[in-house]
Amino acid sequence: MTDTTPQRVQAALLQLDNYGPWTVTPEPRREPELQALQARLYADFADFVGGRDGYVFYGRFDNMVALGGALDRSAYARFQTRVENRYPVTASIGVGHDETPAAALGAASGLLQEAGSAQDGDRREVLAVDGPVGATGVTVAHFDVVDATGTYTDRDHAYDVELVVREVADTLSRYMRTEHDSLSYFVGGDNVIAVCPDLSAAAFDRAVEHVHDRTGVRLQVGFGRGTTAVAAGTGAKHALETCREADKRVSAAPAASD
Amino acid sequence: MTDTTPQRVQAALLQLDNYGPWTVTPEPRREPELQALQARLYADFADFVGGRDGYVFYGRFDNMVALGGALDRSAYARFQTRVENRYPVTASIGVGHDETPAAALGAASGLLQEAGSAQDGDRREVLAVDGPVGATGVTVAHFDVVDATGTYTDRDHAYDVELVVREVADTLSRYMRTEHDSLSYFVGGDNVIAVCPDLSAAAFDRAVEHVHDRTGVRLQVGFGRGTTAVAAGTGAKHALETCREADKRVSAAPAASD
Amino acid sequence: MTDTTPQRVQAALLQLDNYGPWTVTPEPRREPELQALQARLYADFADFVGGRDGYVFYGRFDNMVALGGALDRSAYARFQTRVENRYPVTASIGVGHDETPAAALGAASGLLQEAGSAQDGDRREVLAVDGPVGATGVTVAHFDVVDATGTYTDRDHAYDVELVVREVADTLSRYMRTEHDSLSYFVGGDNVIAVCPDLSAAAFDRAVEHVHDRTGVRLQVGFGRGTTAVAAGTGAKHALETCREADKRVSAAPAASD
Amino acid sequence: MTDTTPQRVQAALLQLDNYGPWTVTPEPRREPELQALQARLYADFADFVGGRDGYVFYGRFDNMVALGGALDRSAYARFQTRVENRYPVTASIGVGHDETPAAALGAASGLLQEAGSAQDGDRREVLAVDGPVGATGVTVAHFDVVDATGTYTDRDHAYDVELVVREVADTLSRYMRTEHDSLSYFVGGDNVIAVCPDLSAAAFDRAVEHVHDRTGVRLQVGFGRGTTAVAAGTGAKHALETCREADKRVSAAPAASD
Repeated sequence: MTDTTPQRVQAALLQLDNYGPWTVTPEPRREPELQALQARLYADFADFVGGRDGYVFYGRFDNMVALGGALDRSAYARFQTRVENRYPVTASIGVGHDETPAAALGAASGLLQEAGSAQDGDRREVLAVDGPVGATGVTVAHFDVVDATGTYTDRDHAYDVELVVREVADTLSRYMRTEHDSLSYFVGGDNVIAVCPDLSAAAFDRAVEHVHDRTGVRLQVGFGRGTTAVAAGTGAKHALETCREADKRVSAAPAASD
Repeated sequence: MTDTTPQRVQAALLQLDNYGPWTVTPEPRREPELQALQARLYADFADFVGGRDGYVFYGRFDNMVALGGALDRSAYARFQTRVENRYPVTASIGVGHDETPAAALGAASGLLQEAGSAQDGDRREVLAVDGPVGATGVTVAHFDVVDATGTYTDRDHAYDVELVVREVADTLSRYMRTEHDSLSYFVGGDNVIAVCPDLSAAAFDRAVEHVHDRTGVRLQVGFGRGTTAVAAGTGAKHALETCREADKRVSAAPAASD
Repeated sequence: MTDTTPQRVQAALLQLDNYGPWTVTPEPRREPELQALQARLYADFADFVGGRDGYVFYGRFDNMVALGGALDRSAYARFQTRVENRYPVTASIGVGHDETPAAALGAASGLLQEAGSAQDGDRREVLAVDGPVGATGVTVAHFDVVDATGTYTDRDHAYDVELVVREVADTLSRYMRTEHDSLSYFVGGDNVIAVCPDLSAAAFDRAVEHVHDRTGVRLQVGFGRGTTAVAAGTGAKHALETCREADKRVSAAPAASD
Repeated sequence: MTDTTPQRVQAALLQLDNYGPWTVTPEPRREPELQALQARLYADFADFVGGRDGYVFYGRFDNMVALGGALDRSAYARFQTRVENRYPVTASIGVGHDETPAAALGAASGLLQEAGSAQDGDRREVLAVDGPVGATGVTVAHFDVVDATGTYTDRDHAYDVELVVREVADTLSRYMRTEHDSLSYFVGGDNVIAVCPDLSAAAFDRAVEHVHDRTGVRLQVGFGRGTTAVAAGTGAKHALETCREADKRVSAAPAASD
């Protein structure tokens, strides 16, 4: 991890075009249908980007995020066509590259905002990319709660467990955003994934400590580096297994897993 | 709203069996594949329950929640078979009925916990119901952020907007849980849906006020009652449209929409 | 099987509105995307109707058929809304009831044809039903090829096996249509399902004989009766298992399986 | 079309492992659930292969075919993992390359047969490839029925229209298989796609003539060449549009569309 070249990460922001108005036109659509639509579109995005080794997060569902991929303009254009061919809605996509995930997503956000409002009926299927694919590497950290099942799921009210997990995810997310220009997302169960610049084990240890101080909940974390999110994240998952087995709080993947 | 019979609501907790271990056996599975699996299973649950007029929330994805339906045991059993026929994982379901959503989901939680651990390899496809369908009515409130697009989405970093929305959703959720035994979920965009016992407009106004005090974000809310979540929620959606058009903070659906 | 009341079966014809033109507007869409769209829409129709105990067949994909259900107008209307909420295309549906499946589907066909052309851009989301739900019962026969795997799949060119199966399915379909006003569909593998009026074992035996005479391929068949296609078809599947185990050519489900 | 290098096409045969027995274990599964499973798995295969510019056909659903792609071993392996991560069944895949589609699929068939029976419970997730990707080009012909909507769909019983279309597809398929080592598939509506070696317009004209002689149905056909099925097939679709507009029976894409 002494490579002096800074990592450069790709972030894509997918925004459904004029989605809010669509959900209530001509009258409000049944909520479960909207939930199903959003979830399937997200699953398709995960398939598409994941098949090209990037990670996808549902964000606010009408604003989804892909991180750590190396897709070129034509790949994103093809996904837009897939959405158009499959759904009653369309999507605009902004793609940014920068040294940190937060800066890259900021660039992507800015590109879409320049192209028009998310609720502008005339802004449709914009694809704005800030340059050629400049992705060179990414660090992924995979956190979970120590013995979540025994401590929470099998004992507490399901909703209260969810509130705890949400609080943990948000506390960690704010810390990683502020301290490390990293983007963290709850991904189900008691898992949070952070997409980061090149950080040390000590940095992750401090993050875990911070969450414990604020919430009383103990996390463990595995992290890895790679040229793509899947490569880095697979290393992180293996490292997290090491935490579970060896009762460690932080574990690094043995080597860059490309 | 002077009906003296207390509402009685149905809550179902769907829990994937031994899911955590499955995700890392024999080795960690690619994250985007897990995301896609969870999202599609959620979409199928939304279709199934939504087709019977209940609402579904993704919760922690390995623990999903259905509220405000009136499905009997055989319907949930059929959904379990559907999962078994379609996915590499299986699901256990607990179903509770009580006067408040929180109490009903607590009953559902307890039934599953009594049946064994969420990570017990031998606990598989449990279906535990606390009695015959006792659902008689539910109140649904649909909140969103006043001018979210203009104030946030079109101006700020996409991630920071997401953090704001998460904070709003969690602040509202804790308040509604504590004060009103209600269960609130972020459902995409800037929308939060709360499933509640019979509450007054004043109660919702105080909730909006509470969120504004804590976060500085202005919400508006429409609410409705009905025998099912879809009936109540459709009323709530229409009422929320009234808020948007008439610049109101709280709006009730004109009448019980059954 | 001495019930003197004639069975009365429901048939629904789902027709995508103006689909052919859509597939080439503004220019021809990628074929795999169309295949995926059609298949998913079919899967959703199977879920919806199957969840209400009817059978669904893909037909020509832009014209799908549901048989042996007992869905009322509002259920079909809800499915139309689901299509509208989920896909870039819409669907019209005709629903007929009659003593034979062929007559019922003929009624459904006629209702849609009266409403306008399948490629009329103005005909959209028609729902035409010939009266209240009049379904009282149906007979389902489930055919497959004797030892298809050993005789064909494991030995011959995959395409030539497919041609054999197609020939068998079509020969059987024409015979059952002409002789018994029944509708037969290939459903995958080496399986053909026929939805029929109340026929005797001897009639199915003659059908098997006819296919053997024309194609040289040996079929076996289980059949059952029930108030719905799923009830009848589940009986037929069990009866077909009996054929496999007891080396019989025709087997009836032990009793009407309602 | 004077290139003297023979085209070399890739064919993949995807076979569900031990699927027949699974559908009846521990007892027969509901037919609509099986239909939905098969259709969704097919849609996923279409997405995956289509995203890499190949065409996919549903074949017998438990035996699906991909043609005209240029996917390497690792791509097919990834799709197998996707199936394993998403479905309750697994898939084996054989991949062959040869000058004609029929020969390539024959090679793929043979590879799977050598690996064990389709109903051998121990044969699971085989991936057998006959060598490195050798795909260099393919010809795709897209046929449809002249004025199918006016002549058939809007006038006749839906089932009888389907029987006509099936007969046309099978007649064409047998002819193209025997005469030209080509593989033809019904793809919905009144469309048949043939994947072919390099054939002349005259050859396609004779095929159309043959179908008319045997069935009385008039077809039209556009064809194109390309390095992938999508490139060739998109040319074919444009050429078919020319047939429709200019009332021609056969039309070639203006140039190899790579």
